[in-house]
Formats: sequence, structure tokens, C-alpha cells
Amino acid sequence: MKKIRAAVVGYGNIGRFTVEALEAAPDFEIAGIVRRQGAENRPAELAAYEVVSDIRQLHDVDVAILATPTRSCEEYAQQILPLGINTVDSFDIHTQIRGYRERLMELNKQTGTVSVIAAGWDPGSDSVVRTLMQSLAPKGLSYTNFGPGMSMGHSVCVRGKEGVKDALSMTIPLGEGIHRRLVYVELEEGASLEAVTAAIKADPYFASDETHVFAVDSVDEVRDMGHGVNLVRKGVSGKTQNQRLEFSMSINNPALTGQVLVNVARASMRQQPGCYTMIEIPVVDLLPGDRADLVEHLV
Amino acid sequence: MKKIRAAVVGYGNIGRFTVEALEAAPDFEIAGIVRRQGAENRPAELAAYEVVSDIRQLHDVDVAILATPTRSCEEYAQQILPLGINTVDSFDIHTQIRGYRERLMELNKQTGTVSVIAAGWDPGSDSVVRTLMQSLAPKGLSYTNFGPGMSMGHSVCVRGKEGVKDALSMTIPLGEGIHRRLVYVELEEGASLEAVTAAIKADPYFASDETHVFAVDSVDEVRDMGHGVNLVRKGVSGKTQNQRLEFSMSINNPALTGQVLVNVARASMRQQPGCYTMIEIPVVDLLPGDRADLVEHLV
Repeated sequence: MKKIRAAVVGYGNIGRFTVEALEAAPDFEIAGIVRRQGAENRPAELAAYEVVSDIRQLHDVDVAILATPTRSCEEYAQQILPLGINTVDSFDIHTQIRGYRERLMELNKQTGTVSVIAAGWDPGSDSVVRTLMQSLAPKGLSYTNFGPGMSMGHSVCVRGKEGVKDALSMTIPLGEGIHRRLVYVELEEGASLEAVTAAIKADPYFASDETHVFAVDSVDEVRDMGHGVNLVRKGVSGKTQNQRLEFSMSINNPALTGQVLVNVARASMRQQPGCYTMIEIPVVDLLPGDRADLVEHLV
Repeated sequence: MKKIRAAVVGYGNIGRFTVEALEAAPDFEIAGIVRRQGAENRPAELAAYEVVSDIRQLHDVDVAILATPTRSCEEYAQQILPLGINTVDSFDIHTQIRGYRERLMELNKQTGTVSVIAAGWDPGSDSVVRTLMQSLAPKGLSYTNFGPGMSMGHSVCVRGKEGVKDALSMTIPLGEGIHRRLVYVELEEGASLEAVTAAIKADPYFASDETHVFAVDSVDEVRDMGHGVNLVRKGVSGKTQNQRLEFSMSINNPALTGQVLVNVARASMRQQPGCYTMIEIPVVDLLPGDRADLVEHLV
């Protein structure tokens, strides 16, 4: 069977775990890794792969997995889709997903390509569970409780602030979907904690949560990539009250994100041209193999 | 907006809760109820509806919700699909789903209709969670632990045995997907518990589980429709071990099944002709409303 040829764009945390998930998948081969610096300082684990600075240097790419910071996803997608290559990403700013989806949709239809966006674990697989839970008990309340764990999106956001050398943003669940954020920053020489704190609190990533910022000597010493989520819904099925539903995970965060990206890269090969979020894709398309066999084993 | 016109076929437990779920749904109207005895002995709560013995007596039906015993589903679907009406059901014999799907698929394509089969909570919404969990940690083991609670499919099966007046089959989780079944039977005059027990244990519904059968004076006195499930998976995302995922519910069983049937009746209006299980349908299609709005609120 012909394997799906995937390029990994970006090689930070998510990129590394995406390469591992591609290596573990039976139906993929790695077309190459795209990094700004190309093959310079190529890490040992990429010795077997083409490492380039521009995706056009790779051949026969079916799908590009954008393991880039959220805010660069759209720019990369806009460049790559006209090449006839599908894109998938884990864009994670919930409030901007609708607009991003609409803009890509048009380009996908023009270019006959598929994009799957916002496909990590939240937004992503949690969105599938949230939607399913709402359908099972249409009236009621859902709460998404994150952590305790490091938020990669929030950490990357803080790292981009002036005066910050390195940063770690921890999410602490307070219950019923309320969270506190604890941000640990390693400051650059001469940077002011006060200014950095103000910049962080003003960012949309942090604006609606209680946020505390601490300066530390070494972010590396306090970093752990474990994370978790607890999704609960209590509601009404038909006219019957008190239906209780709950989903929990305890996971390595970038490893799960890398796996989800590989799953949606696979699913992208099975959809009509267009831009999709995970709730718009049949879950069976996330798995390798024959659909009738999967129905037999999983339904 | 034009409402979806649904007929409910069968008016036992599931049928009653399906009518309630239809009444609670903003986008449905009830075309009528189909019962063997037609309008004879019509229950008070159906006073407002057409109650007939043949679906052809109803007008403009978009979708028929088959709230019949599992073993009658296929016969009803075969009769109804040629009328150009979609069908949905909660057929629950896991080992027979593949064949049933294949047989209906052909008829759906001939008649330009959609069927959604095996759409209750297990098989059904649990299948969606099982599939999602397997995609998140592709290597590993999943366990589905049911109960404690009454299994409607198993109870209906026992009620069909010779010598049984009424029956209740309880599912008791022993952990790691192993279950014990406790069956409470009200025997007919002169029936032998031994013969009934042998018939139950020989049935495919019970053959692979430890099963105990007890005679009781009144099944009604021990009946409770609460149920639950606990789905767990521990596995590997990419090359990262020990990813832990868990889904639990505590629910009124027929109320949830009725709600799921209404959800897939809605989804049937949004699929291409064919026969689907729930893992083959985007979860967003289970909900009423505009897709872009749902993406904005749920992703």
C-alpha cells in the first residue's frame, strides 16, 4: 500500500514528538523536516531524513504538519496549500478558530486541498468529547478543567515577550472550568519583572484568567511536560435530568499533540477539499486501516 | 426553518423516551408513532399525535426511528428505506453490525437514503469514545466496563425465551472489561427454571459471560433503569508510554438511547446516501444549529 508522505514544518517540542509519531505509524513515511536553518546543526535523530529550509525542496509531499507556533500557522498554510499539499495544525487560540477556518476554506476549495486546523488535544480531541457530551445531554453545563500542567501555547506566548529568555506557564484547575495561571520566567539581563508581568497579563492568552508571574533562575529546572484534563457535563437527555458524563486524561502533552497531528494528517487524505476542525471529521478517519474492519472492531 | 419530520416505530421503553427527546429538540416534529396495534389503547401522552399501524399511513416522513427490538431492526429498515425514508436504530449485537451495515449500504445507495445503525450508547456514543481513545494512544489496551445496571438488549432477549413472563438482566463490572450477568426472571405457570436458564446461557447475548439466573415473584419490584460505563485506555502516543484516558457515565439508560437516536436522526439528514455507524459521522452533525456557530462554541 502506498504510504502517506508527510513533511514536518518546525522542529521544536511538537515537531520532535510528531516525528516519533510518524515513525510509529504504519501508513506514513517522512518526506522531510522543514526548519528555518535547514540542515545546519541537524540533530542526530534526523540523520536519516531530508532537512531543508523550504518545503519546495522536498518531493511528493502529501501533507504538511505545521509544528510551528500558533501565530505562524496561517502564514505557512497560505504558502503551502497552493503547492497542492494538505496542511494540519494545532492552532490553539479558541476565539480565532472560526475566522481562520473561513479564510483557509476558500483557499482549500480553490486549490483542491484539505486543511485540518485546531487539532491538538484542546482544541482538538477534547472538542470531540465536548461536542459528543453536549449531544448526549443537550441541556446542561459542561466544564473543562485543565491541569495541573504546563500549557505549551501559553509558554510559547510568554517566551515571545520582550525581556524573557525562557518561560513556563502552568495551568492550575480551580474547578468548574476556572483556572489560575502560574508563569515562571527567566529574565534577560536588565529586564524588569514588572514590565514583563504587565505584558503577559495584557495578552489575550492570559487576559481572562487569574495570573501570577514569578522570576526563576532556571526554567529548565521546573519544567515537566505532564498534563491533564477533566471534562464534565451534567445535563438532560430528552426530559430526563441528572445524566452525568466525564472524560479525563493524564498525558505527556507534546506527545499527545504530535499523535493527534499525525491522526489528522491521515484523516486529511480522506476528506473532500475544505477546511475542517476535528468535530467535523468522522473519528474512524483518524485511524489507519480499512473502514469496515474498524467498524467491526470498534463499534 | 423547516423541521425534520420523524416517525417513531415501536413504543416500548426506548420509544417513549425517544418521543420525549423529539419533543425537547428544537428542530424536529413528530410525524407519528407506528405500533402494531395502531391507535388502539393509545396512551394519554400520545393524544396529540397520529398513531398508526403502518408507516405508509403517515405523510412526509423524513426519518424513521426504529425503537424496536434489535432483531426486528433489519426487517423494518428493509421495508421503510424503499419508501425514501431514512432509518436509524440502536441495533446492539456487536458481532453482527458489520454484516448488517453491508446489507443496508446497498439498499441505501439504491434508494438514495441514509441509515445510521448501532446508535445507542454501546454500541454508539461509547464507540466514538473508544475510537478516539485508540487514535490518541494507538498502542495499548482499552477496557469497557459496564454497569452496574440493567441491560435492555439482554433483558429483551430473555423476555423472548419460552416460559418467561418478564425478565431483567443486570450487568456487573468485574474490571478490565470482564462482566458477570445476573438475570432475574418471572416464570410462566409451569415453566422450569432449569430449562429457561439453559436457553439463556446458550444465547449469543450471554454465551461469553458468567451468567446467573434467578426466579423472582415480580421483576417490576427490582427494576431500575440507571446504568453506567467506565471506558479506560492506557497506551502509547507516538513512542511515549503511560498515556491514560478515561470516560465515565452515570445515566438513565433508555433516556440516553432515545436522545442518541434523535441525534443520529438529525445527522442522517446531513450525510450522503449510505449506511453509517456513529464512528463514521462527524460529531458536529449530532447537534442542531449552524456548523460554523458550533465550531466557534465547541472547538
